[in-house]
Amino acid sequence: MIGRLNHVAIAVKDIASATKVYQNTLGAKVTDAVPQPDHGVTTVFVELPNTKIELLEPLGADSPIAKFLERNADGGIHHICYEVDDIIAARDQLKGQGARVLGTGEPRIGAHGKPVLFLHPKDFCGTLVELEQA
Amino acid sequence: MIGRLNHVAIAVKDIASATKVYQNTLGAKVTDAVPQPDHGVTTVFVELPNTKIELLEPLGADSPIAKFLERNADGGIHHICYEVDDIIAARDQLKGQGARVLGTGEPRIGAHGKPVLFLHPKDFCGTLVELEQA
Repeated sequence: MIGRLNHVAIAVKDIASATKVYQNTLGAKVTDAVPQPDHGVTTVFVELPNTKIELLEPLGADSPIAKFLERNADGGIHHICYEVDDIIAARDQLKGQGARVLGTGEPRIGAHGKPVLFLHPKDFCGTLVELEQA
Repeated sequence: MIGRLNHVAIAVKDIASATKVYQNTLGAKVTDAVPQPDHGVTTVFVELPNTKIELLEPLGADSPIAKFLERNADGGIHHICYEVDDIIAARDQLKGQGARVLGTGEPRIGAHGKPVLFLHPKDFCGTLVELEQA
């Protein structure tokens, strides 16, 4: 079912500083920072040859990554995103196997403009998994 | 400096159960479990079209992932591995910029038979970073 690793998301308190780490220290290609008010985050993508790292900084009062950063003051890997061909078919197959889908269970349009869902970390090796329709 | 994302490593208490999650629930291709006594882990690779997920289970009394699993009982993402062309040049460049290399600072031969180094999470957005010579 799962295809490519679309991205690994790293939550940070200061995205300008994190961008410098990836651009200057690690010598990677990075995009400009884009505020995503619908998602409560500002994003920068680190463009690697085979996939992306998504840097996330909280935006607004109810950011979904605020609690994570309270527990992880230095930042840390927040989630991992796998591509699927058909997100509804993937969801229904996963639910049929007992996996828990977060939120309403209906796909939302994610930061890349494509339908996404999040799966419960306890069902996936302690890892928050995002599925994105490719 | 950094090139491809070589793998994302997920530490788990029970690699047989984690392998079933990736093979059966998520429908991915997985390798057999391989004990790596020199590294204190047993590994399974989940082979995605563009990169790999490395599942790690502690092996032996002094496993380097034992403490992580004490803090993360369900498992979790342990580190992320980027490829570099020349690990000595990369190390020296990073040290010159003030980044901390873990252990002796000399590369070891990693689970893939190639030279690897680990970088201090506090210098890299709270993320344990492995560098592997491609």
